[in-house]
Amino acid sequence: MLCASDVCRDRQMSLYVQKFGGTSVGTVERIQVVADKVAKFRNDGHDMVIVVSAMSGETNRLIGLANSMQETPDPRELDVLVSTGEQVTIALLCMALKERGVDARSYTGGQVSILTDNSHNKARIQEIGVENIRSDLDAGRVVVVAGFQGVDDQGNITTLGRGGSDTTGVALAAALKADECQIYTDVDGVYTTDPRVVDSARRLEKVTFEEMLEMASQGSKVLQIRSVEFAGKYNVPLRVLSSFVDGPGTLITLDEEGNAMEQPVVSGIAFNRDEAKVTVVGVPDTPGAAARVLSPIGGANIEVDVIVQNISEDNTTDITFTVHRNDVTKTQAVLQPVCEELGVRELKTDDKVAKISVVGVGMRSHAGVASTMFETLANENINIQMITTSEIKIAVIIDERYLELAVRALHSAFELSDA
Amino acid sequence: MLCASDVCRDRQMSLYVQKFGGTSVGTVERIQVVADKVAKFRNDGHDMVIVVSAMSGETNRLIGLANSMQETPDPRELDVLVSTGEQVTIALLCMALKERGVDARSYTGGQVSILTDNSHNKARIQEIGVENIRSDLDAGRVVVVAGFQGVDDQGNITTLGRGGSDTTGVALAAALKADECQIYTDVDGVYTTDPRVVDSARRLEKVTFEEMLEMASQGSKVLQIRSVEFAGKYNVPLRVLSSFVDGPGTLITLDEEGNAMEQPVVSGIAFNRDEAKVTVVGVPDTPGAAARVLSPIGGANIEVDVIVQNISEDNTTDITFTVHRNDVTKTQAVLQPVCEELGVRELKTDDKVAKISVVGVGMRSHAGVASTMFETLANENINIQMITTSEIKIAVIIDERYLELAVRALHSAFELSDA
Repeated sequence: MLCASDVCRDRQMSLYVQKFGGTSVGTVERIQVVADKVAKFRNDGHDMVIVVSAMSGETNRLIGLANSMQETPDPRELDVLVSTGEQVTIALLCMALKERGVDARSYTGGQVSILTDNSHNKARIQEIGVENIRSDLDAGRVVVVAGFQGVDDQGNITTLGRGGSDTTGVALAAALKADECQIYTDVDGVYTTDPRVVDSARRLEKVTFEEMLEMASQGSKVLQIRSVEFAGKYNVPLRVLSSFVDGPGTLITLDEEGNAMEQPVVSGIAFNRDEAKVTVVGVPDTPGAAARVLSPIGGANIEVDVIVQNISEDNTTDITFTVHRNDVTKTQAVLQPVCEELGVRELKTDDKVAKISVVGVGMRSHAGVASTMFETLANENINIQMITTSEIKIAVIIDERYLELAVRALHSAFELSDA
Repeated sequence: MLCASDVCRDRQMSLYVQKFGGTSVGTVERIQVVADKVAKFRNDGHDMVIVVSAMSGETNRLIGLANSMQETPDPRELDVLVSTGEQVTIALLCMALKERGVDARSYTGGQVSILTDNSHNKARIQEIGVENIRSDLDAGRVVVVAGFQGVDDQGNITTLGRGGSDTTGVALAAALKADECQIYTDVDGVYTTDPRVVDSARRLEKVTFEEMLEMASQGSKVLQIRSVEFAGKYNVPLRVLSSFVDGPGTLITLDEEGNAMEQPVVSGIAFNRDEAKVTVVGVPDTPGAAARVLSPIGGANIEVDVIVQNISEDNTTDITFTVHRNDVTKTQAVLQPVCEELGVRELKTDDKVAKISVVGVGMRSHAGVASTMFETLANENINIQMITTSEIKIAVIIDERYLELAVRALHSAFELSDA
């Protein structure tokens, strides 16, 4: 029925990819609310592709089962196990849609197919086949896709890692050239900072991909970082909305050059309590030393965030970096042989640190953000342990005890509140 | 490593397909018991393919979710949903095996691939690809396959219907030319009749496929009928054993001609409370009338068991047949238009009936089984409503209130007890 859908397009109908996270599909009743919402869009004539996560709690239940079987669950089998979570949701949502008279068809990651590399538990999407989805859309069906999962080229089930359903949504939107990718979540948009920490935090109407990337990677839990990268790369308009409260949410789009001067200097304050600091003390200061320390970390699939190298007086150097707190033990194990080989003095770790970032595209054309940030922290007597910067972000590592104090002080210093 | 496995075969190692049902894998602890059992076989040098069901209760939980979404759940989506049950078990069992140092790999029905027709919820296996499994076996891995499921030629997930995991096991054993297909269950073998009804029921060392087929189809719940058909057709030695109690179980094999005379006349008494009787009264007695009544039933995928046609005086005939009790409403709906078209007098149903069968290959060469059966029931004042016979079986339909009385009387009349 190409014809029919062409008519639709003539009438200014849109193709939306909507992603509903675990909380939004957490119970039978909530799945029915999602079905109502989707049915309404479909009945308005829009083409709809829905990406869903596992019902909240389900992934943890499955991981609990895995842990009761094997101390470190086999990565391949863990993917076979946890991917069932989304498979349950796609079937239930399709049933709910059909009950509402809306034709729908479910797809697992493999059925789409969403082809990934074979890095189990942390796979990356390589290619998406959209032929099946296109023909279902043309036949007037709502397509419901399991988020978070794919298959490698051997047909093994893979998962994209936690939060990967956002990435599935954006990748599908890009592949299908959707008009908008709408991420439904339990918050009603992106805020200047976490409203649980700062009462007067304000919802942003719009942020740029770059800002969102910095916000997400610095720990704003609203969107998964890779989904924002994807959206930016393929210029997929991304909207964050609430599943529970109607509202426009926050639109994430390209930074339109002309508007740069009108942007506020700082858009938001992001923070992250999940990091741990690792310091390799007394590395011989020879070319390649940093690489020899950091390559095995990457090789072990441990993500490194901030890296700082200080010069010492005695021909040695200290290399400090941060990893996720869950990766500290693994990092130590990976570094031990390297440290012995290099003859370093000491390997220190500290998981009582937090990171705070000040983010804003306006920073590009404004000096003084760094000095305002450092002065504000100094006034509160908060010691800065590490500093890292990008074009649109300044981040510091501090003692985690001062995190909330620092966020509130910075939010106020950069005048981000509602009033 | 073809070489290595050839050596194994020289040493009289066997290839076993073992199937563990929902009760056997019902908890984390029971999966660990299964892993211990499988590891022992593997460590003895046998090649092992394991077929598992969903953890007991899981399928019902999923069906409950489906029913809360849609009054009559969409068949395709129901398969997507319930197939997750076995997918969870295969992953958990592989983890448990790996924890025991046994290399293992899981396969969903689609990954094998187990190709079926597209009759959702009741699919039939058409073809099994064993290449992947072979290469894993050659590499020394235990292969763990999700029972009960497959894919159609479009890649849609299908399920074989309840009990279909037995069929998966036997079909895999046939495709792999396994030495034995061992069905682990919660009973320790096939009995002369249900021990819950007759205390003195006796475990059979051996039964023939034909006998087992009659027993299974008559309601002995030990094995799913299609699995026995499969096993007989491809001559796969089938053994029923207990997951919980060690013992030889019951071996189901070909009837060796020479031994027929040594077989007991009757091997067992099977019965079934799941049937309902449907009578179409006053069908015009013209050629093709029976077909016109029964074809739509088959077309609606309703299984008909006993069929009896009586001649009436007035150029009409009564056609009586039995279907599963769950299918009575559907049967009435399907027959209504046909009855009107044919101008039949009445459509009657009765779901308060039960079927009892006396089964034995020995019957072929012994007269008198029928008369013993009918006399025994007459002595108990039990009225026979329908009779149907095969070479090795005589079955009757009676009022379900007399079922237990009838089974006990027949078990005793055919001297099936232990003593």
